[in-house]
Amino acid sequence: MNVLIVYAHPEPRSLNGALRDFAVAHLGAAGHAVQVTDLYAMNWKPVLDGRDATDRAPGARFDPSLDSRRAFAAGTQSADIVREQDKLKWADAVILQFPLWWFSMPAIMKGWFERVYAYGFAYGVGEHSDTRWGNRYGEGALAGKRAMVVVTAGGWESHYSARGINGPIDDVLFPIQHGMLYYPGFDVLPPFVIYRTGKMDDARFGETRAALGRRLDTLWTAQPIPFRRQNAGDYEIPALTLKDGIAPGEVGFAAHRVA
Amino acid sequence: MNVLIVYAHPEPRSLNGALRDFAVAHLGAAGHAVQVTDLYAMNWKPVLDGRDATDRAPGARFDPSLDSRRAFAAGTQSADIVREQDKLKWADAVILQFPLWWFSMPAIMKGWFERVYAYGFAYGVGEHSDTRWGNRYGEGALAGKRAMVVVTAGGWESHYSARGINGPIDDVLFPIQHGMLYYPGFDVLPPFVIYRTGKMDDARFGETRAALGRRLDTLWTAQPIPFRRQNAGDYEIPALTLKDGIAPGEVGFAAHRVA
Repeated sequence: MNVLIVYAHPEPRSLNGALRDFAVAHLGAAGHAVQVTDLYAMNWKPVLDGRDATDRAPGARFDPSLDSRRAFAAGTQSADIVREQDKLKWADAVILQFPLWWFSMPAIMKGWFERVYAYGFAYGVGEHSDTRWGNRYGEGALAGKRAMVVVTAGGWESHYSARGINGPIDDVLFPIQHGMLYYPGFDVLPPFVIYRTGKMDDARFGETRAALGRRLDTLWTAQPIPFRRQNAGDYEIPALTLKDGIAPGEVGFAAHRVA
Repeated sequence: MNVLIVYAHPEPRSLNGALRDFAVAHLGAAGHAVQVTDLYAMNWKPVLDGRDATDRAPGARFDPSLDSRRAFAAGTQSADIVREQDKLKWADAVILQFPLWWFSMPAIMKGWFERVYAYGFAYGVGEHSDTRWGNRYGEGALAGKRAMVVVTAGGWESHYSARGINGPIDDVLFPIQHGMLYYPGFDVLPPFVIYRTGKMDDARFGETRAALGRRLDTLWTAQPIPFRRQNAGDYEIPALTLKDGIAPGEVGFAAHRVA
């Protein structure tokens, strides 16, 4: 199978760098083809702006959505964006690997999503009607592919537990796993999270690497997070609220997973 | 009073641009001093890396936290970072204004936090003991200042309601409002959210501007979101989980607000 690792860390000689190298070798040894988008190493342009299309009229007003739509349809997206879209099309599975900085991904990775997820590619796709609200949340250009987040955090696991002060890790990652990965169709596997990275000795590193290897071995068989499909009957359309009979009384992110 | 507006939108001739200009004028007319950090216009460097300190040894391994700590303590942070820290010290209130892109702030603004929020300035501050876990979540360098998010979204208000498919807006914004603003001490006011920005006619724009003006008029008097203080007795230390008697049985982001 084809695996794309989208990776963001500024220092190759880091825990993240070591785990990335391990994942590449482990997947390769299992016979998979691997590509790595190493955002820092490739000096990825992180900022979405008018330079993302090659055909803009000088001085024209820039609209992030409408310009993206036009450039995607006309084939005038900048070449770095097209290359990443091609990698996504090629991949059977995508691994997003990053350190958790301020409860989200590094800016350079956020900018990868903003630029690569074009209008017509990752959003603004499909029919809007009384029964469908576009191809998203379970449908879309990336449906049939798998995705998994590999993330390192300085804080303790308890700080990200159900009643931990940072919020439950599933909720912290919901905007990424549901909002960026499930949205254009990925089946999203449970995340691989490494806590308390400041206390990583050789023994723990070995265990961590072995645990990551086991997760990579089940990339094709593990059960995805059972997010609810938008157009399959659980939501009112166009309000996109859960129907009264679905998870009655529940609110918040967790209600969008099938219990 | 002194107000800093941290603003991220690539097009000045946009809804965001118009609201930013309105806020600057409105606050100025009320006698406040206003500075604007216009991230796109100033070509803000969005990527945290080794160039953020002026005294790094060539080839030395880069550690995002430890390098930030050293540079902050030694006075060797890059000048653009120091300028923004000075603005934060100057401000009595900070307004973060941005379009919601993929359920978070634009990459360029995320990179502002990553670089300006230095170790020793916004995190890694204060004593760790049996009764305190650093000066954060209600204490810290920015305590006594107010912050408010002004955010535009293409989706409908119902999509961000308690049972809406994108998750409740309070939860979507929790990593920002709690994790980035409350963390170093800001009192965080309820956000000003503009939905369905694709359907903005002159009448609605006028109403929106007027509503924003009313929010700016109450910047000093409005009640902040009642997030729970980390070191004031609600949390076990060092696990940082809510004590059994606090919001019993509740899980998720909402449990960290006093009901």
